Amino acid sequence: MIERLAVVGVGLLGGSVARAARVRGLARRIVGVGREPARLVAAVRDGTLDAATADLGDAVREADVVVLAAPVLVNEVLLARVWSLVPDGAVVTDVGSTKRGIVTAAERLATERPVAFVGSHPMAGSERSGYEAARDDLLQGALVIVTPTEATQAGALKRVTELWERCGAQVTTLDPETHDRAVAAVSHLPQVVARALVDAVARFEPAALDVAGRGFRDTTRIAASDPVVWREILVANRDAVIASLGAFRAALDDLERVIRAGDGEALERRLAAIKAWRQRL
Amino acid sequence: MIERLAVVGVGLLGGSVARAARVRGLARRIVGVGREPARLVAAVRDGTLDAATADLGDAVREADVVVLAAPVLVNEVLLARVWSLVPDGAVVTDVGSTKRGIVTAAERLATERPVAFVGSHPMAGSERSGYEAARDDLLQGALVIVTPTEATQAGALKRVTELWERCGAQVTTLDPETHDRAVAAVSHLPQVVARALVDAVARFEPAALDVAGRGFRDTTRIAASDPVVWREILVANRDAVIASLGAFRAALDDLERVIRAGDGEALERRLAAIKAWRQRL
Repeated sequence: MIERLAVVGVGLLGGSVARAARVRGLARRIVGVGREPARLVAAVRDGTLDAATADLGDAVREADVVVLAAPVLVNEVLLARVWSLVPDGAVVTDVGSTKRGIVTAAERLATERPVAFVGSHPMAGSERSGYEAARDDLLQGALVIVTPTEATQAGALKRVTELWERCGAQVTTLDPETHDRAVAAVSHLPQVVARALVDAVARFEPAALDVAGRGFRDTTRIAASDPVVWREILVANRDAVIASLGAFRAALDDLERVIRAGDGEALERRLAAIKAWRQRL
Repeated sequence: MIERLAVVGVGLLGGSVARAARVRGLARRIVGVGREPARLVAAVRDGTLDAATADLGDAVREADVVVLAAPVLVNEVLLARVWSLVPDGAVVTDVGSTKRGIVTAAERLATERPVAFVGSHPMAGSERSGYEAARDDLLQGALVIVTPTEATQAGALKRVTELWERCGAQVTTLDPETHDRAVAAVSHLPQVVARALVDAVARFEPAALDVAGRGFRDTTRIAASDPVVWREILVANRDAVIASLGAFRAALDDLERVIRAGDGEALERRLAAIKAWRQRL
């Protein structure tokens, strides 16, 4: 049981963590932090939060668990302030989509004061954003990647793992570098590709949007995701994203070459091989 | 009311047309054509088809409406045979994803014998294929693009439009060239992009597939579609597909340039503009 859970940034993910913790009775008291507490009124009114504040100190000074759920580069800035404010024994985690930056920042801070930090990344998003999109069950059945390092305290890792598992998620472990490369491939690359797809059609064939069916809708659903969240992710994970774009261009070149050649049999073989990969998911 | 409906190719789309016609009582008799009639046993057994045959002549000789639902290049070949077999007054349509080829073929055939043909393209697909994926309601609420030309008989256009509307679809009209450019953008381009995305991850970061979430799944759902169907579409619509790939590359280059520059504000502006386009759908 958590005595006092502080959720910093009560949007889609932070709000869903708070809601899951409330519904499942994981924390005695839940405090939300937002730059504009007026935007947290709904979360207080519906009973998810016991209190909302713009004052980080008020929220985390007595917290035993802190979840950073602001955009990723904001989390890195907030981490330094949280580090100096939390009581001894507190455990800090985050929900950001990139992990090298914040884990490195935590290890640097730990040389000054030993605070327990474990990086987390719930693979549970939506093209919607804000507390109004938060759900009790967003984490239910979702995968949460935690990214401990050699410096991580075993007790803190256990506590954070339990938090996610009690929210209904499945937890897996990766080191921060492997995590950032993996999510560049299966999350950040699709985001850039889906955006480019919408952009290409909007600029070169806008009338075609009138006849777009389910295929186009599904392929580009994530292109409606929050611009601030994604600006931060793509900048924070720039190197890995650019590397994955290189791999994508190579794959696209290969496919285009076969289409240009008009070689139906070779094309069918490639399409079948790709179908088989997709079906393994 | 259709006296005798012949469906040539009883897979996902042909099967769904037959099922909708049966359930809604649109045809007195429905005959399915397949190279291997054994594969149509299920459609006869469940009452969708009155008969199944491998003999095109048997199926269309007395048909008043023929729906070609084989892969697109096969449809073009079958069209010439159907043309010489159907009785006077029959109406022929198809469900292929490209329209210039088959419409041109029909206009050439019409110089020898006046048979009524109207090209159709139901924008209702699935990554699944075969009769087992066919559904009574696949066309319900779907958009069907019909592609009449100046040579199209008004009565035939009306009959085909009614068929789709009675299957629950919404019908819109485009000329074949405009159709092929539009679907290259919103259907064939996403197909190639989704395949390249799966291929890139499978080849360069296969372990990342283990942590793929809903974003990757949705973006690549169509990459599991039937390789034969898509081989034919991409070859048949090659020029328009290659043109749309050019537009896509330009959009991808633009996005990558902003990501490389690390200019968060410019990136947020582009992401927001793209989000707005996506939300218009």
